[in-house]
Amino acid sequence: VRHIAILGAGSWGTALATLLPNAERVRLWARDPGLAEAIQSTRANERYLPGVALRRNVEATDDLAAALEGAECVVYAVPSGAMRDVACLAAPLLPPGVLLVNASKGLEEETGRRMSEVIRSAAVEAGASPEIAGRIAALSGPNLAVEVARGVPTASVAAATDPQTARACQALWMGPAFRVYTSADPVGVELAGAMKNVIAIGAGVCEGLGYGDNSRAALMTRGLAEITRLGVALGAQPATFLGLAGVGDLIATGGSRLSRNFRVGVGIGQGRPLEDVVAELGQVAEGVPTTRAICRLSERTGIEAPIARALHQVLFEGRTVPDAIAELMLRPPRDEADF
Amino acid sequence: VRHIAILGAGSWGTALATLLPNAERVRLWARDPGLAEAIQSTRANERYLPGVALRRNVEATDDLAAALEGAECVVYAVPSGAMRDVACLAAPLLPPGVLLVNASKGLEEETGRRMSEVIRSAAVEAGASPEIAGRIAALSGPNLAVEVARGVPTASVAAATDPQTARACQALWMGPAFRVYTSADPVGVELAGAMKNVIAIGAGVCEGLGYGDNSRAALMTRGLAEITRLGVALGAQPATFLGLAGVGDLIATGGSRLSRNFRVGVGIGQGRPLEDVVAELGQVAEGVPTTRAICRLSERTGIEAPIARALHQVLFEGRTVPDAIAELMLRPPRDEADF
Repeated sequence: VRHIAILGAGSWGTALATLLPNAERVRLWARDPGLAEAIQSTRANERYLPGVALRRNVEATDDLAAALEGAECVVYAVPSGAMRDVACLAAPLLPPGVLLVNASKGLEEETGRRMSEVIRSAAVEAGASPEIAGRIAALSGPNLAVEVARGVPTASVAAATDPQTARACQALWMGPAFRVYTSADPVGVELAGAMKNVIAIGAGVCEGLGYGDNSRAALMTRGLAEITRLGVALGAQPATFLGLAGVGDLIATGGSRLSRNFRVGVGIGQGRPLEDVVAELGQVAEGVPTTRAICRLSERTGIEAPIARALHQVLFEGRTVPDAIAELMLRPPRDEADF
Repeated sequence: VRHIAILGAGSWGTALATLLPNAERVRLWARDPGLAEAIQSTRANERYLPGVALRRNVEATDDLAAALEGAECVVYAVPSGAMRDVACLAAPLLPPGVLLVNASKGLEEETGRRMSEVIRSAAVEAGASPEIAGRIAALSGPNLAVEVARGVPTASVAAATDPQTARACQALWMGPAFRVYTSADPVGVELAGAMKNVIAIGAGVCEGLGYGDNSRAALMTRGLAEITRLGVALGAQPATFLGLAGVGDLIATGGSRLSRNFRVGVGIGQGRPLEDVVAELGQVAEGVPTTRAICRLSERTGIEAPIARALHQVLFEGRTVPDAIAELMLRPPRDEADF
């Protein structure tokens, strides 16, 4: 695989373009013509990943057909809210036999669907064979974009139902500073990557309240138990939540000012309104719509999700944070294995 | 349970003495007469938990027999290196039917034994019935002592083979700011609590090297996989490592300057010799002897432990940190489920 198209020129799409040790040609597609042009002329993405020079083989464009032409691999790195749209635009232009990689961490808000399901259904609707599902991988893990671009040691997981697809995705990015593991559980990898953003907001709330590491660790651990049992009800393997896409990503984002979701939580914990916090961020915080998606999945499956539910009340229903926390702390005594 | 003896007046033993919402009388035993006297006269432990006032029901003493007399519960909160000694001293003085709680996170260095095993064997050697095993609980979780003393929301897990014992331990500490879960897996809770200290040193090394959250999260996740599979080989339940004593404690200590093990790692990552780092700390960092214990358990069980092994080489065999990390990053590509 030598020719790669990356859809989405945010911080993560751009960081992924800087890796790819064996690629001959990388086309980075930005929907915004101004952004594509700026990247192409300055050889950097000053808007979303400032200070990182792009390699010579990266070409930015706003022309989707040109980006996809001759691509052997297409990487989807757009926010979950834009995925359906972009996947539908790309679907009729996909070269035959292409490897598809979802690099986005979110769920479709209305349907609760995973991003690779959205990519697959868009392709099938455009006439692709249902077997295309076997050629879709998900790449996820504790991968803060700015750190990946700095070249510090990082690990990630490439998951697909077909082991060959997972290994092809692994081979694309594996390098001395970016270690990729394969996984046969794309359902778990995608659910963990999306759902952990909700827990990261909760961890930020603890920080914003001035609580310490004990509170943050307790919230993250119980949150992990919550997303694990919801994930398992949706077909995931529990061990995946113990891995890089689960615990790993939670550790990286649940205590880092570099994480947008964590920063949203900090603002909420400080008592500021959601709109102000999100407006100040200037980028998408996936955990906000994912909180809604998790609460819907919790209702649909009948699996309790007390932390996501409490966060939903705080974010969207005007409940105060101390009130929500008191309820979580004062639930009846129980066994760690129960919920 | 109204009368409690706490053996060990370090930061954790002292913090535990400040909780106990329903206790009538708490005796805090310090081996050092000067420390016991200072605590008793100042009503605070300025050496190990400065600034925290003790409640009126807490009495510090260096007289072990007086501390244990009439106790319905004995809490062991001494460093693992002193546990055998203290357990043997206490064993002949234990009142009949007493509840025993291990609150220490370590393994006996020479034997790799868990602390509750040490407590049990000392009691049995002093003539107790082997059934005493059913009355031993382990209390563990993301519980930085200074934060517990500050009263921020904290969660912990009380584990015992006998559910009644676990519930008795839960009832002792449960309060609005300290939430205790029960667990039927004391083996997993104790192994997780001890072994996570080794991973916390590794996380500190990443920090000391100036690496970011990606590296730290990857090391902690792969470290968690490593201690989980070693724990399972020793009889633990894998889910316990996903809980408060595993992931939870790892999150609280693997990124916190308040953790002694993390601070040891930071110093090592900065290239300083182990002796200097430990000397500066002035308190025990359990992860240092536990690294040796894990490597021995790895050899005995035949379960690979590449991170503990690499840390052993760095701490005790003069290997450089960059060299050890390069080897970990350059291991052959593999599946996340393999090791």
